[in-house]
Amino acid sequence: MPIDTLKWVDNSLVLLDQTLLPNHVEYKKYHEVEDIAEAIEHLVVRGAPAIGLTAAYGIAISAYNTKEGSSDFFLNSINKACDRLSKTRPTAVNLFWAIEKMQQIVAKNCRLSNTEIFEALLNGAHELFEQDRLICRQMGSLGADLLPQKSRVITHCNAGALATADHGTALGMLYSAKDIGKSISVFASETRPILQGARLTVWELNEHGIDVTLICDNMIASVLRDEDITCCIVGADRVAANGDVANKIGTYGLAVLAKEHNVPFYVVAPVSTLDLSIETGEHIPIEHRHGDEVRRVMNNLITKIDVPVYNPSFDVTPYEFVNAIISEKGVARPPFSKMLWSWKNNGALA
Amino acid sequence: MPIDTLKWVDNSLVLLDQTLLPNHVEYKKYHEVEDIAEAIEHLVVRGAPAIGLTAAYGIAISAYNTKEGSSDFFLNSINKACDRLSKTRPTAVNLFWAIEKMQQIVAKNCRLSNTEIFEALLNGAHELFEQDRLICRQMGSLGADLLPQKSRVITHCNAGALATADHGTALGMLYSAKDIGKSISVFASETRPILQGARLTVWELNEHGIDVTLICDNMIASVLRDEDITCCIVGADRVAANGDVANKIGTYGLAVLAKEHNVPFYVVAPVSTLDLSIETGEHIPIEHRHGDEVRRVMNNLITKIDVPVYNPSFDVTPYEFVNAIISEKGVARPPFSKMLWSWKNNGALA
Repeated sequence: MPIDTLKWVDNSLVLLDQTLLPNHVEYKKYHEVEDIAEAIEHLVVRGAPAIGLTAAYGIAISAYNTKEGSSDFFLNSINKACDRLSKTRPTAVNLFWAIEKMQQIVAKNCRLSNTEIFEALLNGAHELFEQDRLICRQMGSLGADLLPQKSRVITHCNAGALATADHGTALGMLYSAKDIGKSISVFASETRPILQGARLTVWELNEHGIDVTLICDNMIASVLRDEDITCCIVGADRVAANGDVANKIGTYGLAVLAKEHNVPFYVVAPVSTLDLSIETGEHIPIEHRHGDEVRRVMNNLITKIDVPVYNPSFDVTPYEFVNAIISEKGVARPPFSKMLWSWKNNGALA
Repeated sequence: MPIDTLKWVDNSLVLLDQTLLPNHVEYKKYHEVEDIAEAIEHLVVRGAPAIGLTAAYGIAISAYNTKEGSSDFFLNSINKACDRLSKTRPTAVNLFWAIEKMQQIVAKNCRLSNTEIFEALLNGAHELFEQDRLICRQMGSLGADLLPQKSRVITHCNAGALATADHGTALGMLYSAKDIGKSISVFASETRPILQGARLTVWELNEHGIDVTLICDNMIASVLRDEDITCCIVGADRVAANGDVANKIGTYGLAVLAKEHNVPFYVVAPVSTLDLSIETGEHIPIEHRHGDEVRRVMNNLITKIDVPVYNPSFDVTPYEFVNAIISEKGVARPPFSKMLWSWKNNGALA
């Protein structure tokens, strides 16, 4: 079942409000850059590829809204939109990658009329969107080959259709495996504080008819020991040149535990997630979010209202714990560096 | 600040209702065995030593309630109470240990009158209670010696005053360290599904004036890597003859992650927690509780209402991951077996 995570309708951006899932499937329409930036900040839309696409459409909307103005005002507004959107979240590199793609389109077309530049930007966003669909399918198909006929998989957070234009990264691997007749069952860790596993992955796997069991994050070690797990698969928010992977908080612990139990740990990430300007994961900026995310669960206080909290949204998994990185270009095995560079240098699509 | 986790008042048992913490500090009075059994099952009282003591007082209450009846009826009621209480929770061995102690008192005094047997049972429960206080203080003092002057500690679940008669097991170590002037700060993992860390440990450390930072369970690996942690300390629900430790779900993962980061992992457990009839942790019965504990957080649904759930309340940490077990008898280092036997054979108190 296809899930519309984001779509362009009547010159506005429509987002599935992921803060309301799984209890309400509700779409919201956005006409203003500021509202789109806040939607990213408040996790209405999340997942590295999806926030990149959202930013791209946000820039198109900025162009649409200002194309009747002077050329200066128009270009200035687009720059401001790029700036605002780039400040929404620091860790996922796809955001900056998508904004840069849009800026290149402006630069290439700056002699054209405002309306023509808007059309180029909108087409650019549509292309990124279509590209993401194809990339997800390609990664899914490459990843599915790694899965045995009967697979029992742990996944953390949500790296599915809800994090991309369509098929998902890590979960796309499972959908593709199912499509070619493999038997897949999944343990989804709930992924505190925001519960992307419990709220999004459970819902999404259910929509796709894939068997899923929910666990708390601290049950992962027991599941790895007792439940005959085939592999762990996750997405990524940024991959450094050496293969270190920034992803949702808890990923690093999962990777260490997987290695301890000799369970392969796979990362599924499009080439747009590679940041080869960063040599190791140590230098990836890690977003820390408000302590109330930890103090509350879906708005309900679970502890003392003023307790100090440590709330990094991501962690970095050193490449030594990663058995393979799967992109649309292929499957990289450690040491990753050479393969990651060859992927990046050969363009985004095979 | 002393916390009254359980106390005997006017021939009834008063329990601090831990399901309501930290928002409400509310005591409930119990006069019937069945209500006490349900209080254990519903986690009004929890923690291995505390549920052992609760069961002991539950047996005293059964004797109090039936002492006006015939001798047969009286002894039969006590047996039924022992049976009912032993079926409340399977993992913590202190429960069975305390019930056995009470059965021994009945056996030793069975020629006496009902009232005299009741008095012997009540005195027996009081003795276990006082013994637990002394044991906690002794463990605290032994454990405090292991902590450097300035210590940054991770603890999981609640092994504090709320889990015992008074001072706590793992947290007792911290209170004793503070009492002798050491500087202690704590990262408390929230401990899904029931949130003993967020609800109980945060509250309790606050009451004792110890600096505490709350984290989600999946942040432990990041904290171990980035936050200069001195050691991890936990309690135990049952320790096998080889030193394998059953404790709150998530303990095993914490221990593996501690080892990966070269951080010592300490278990604080009274001799009553040792079950040397069990050679390895593999044979410790692990309680699985209702899936709604995972599907909900403090009664609020966080996922699809019918998603399958895996909900073991405990896990087993192999002794290879344990750097020391601290009991009232001393500090055991691996291999543990010989020391654990010597502790057990030399009686419960030094």
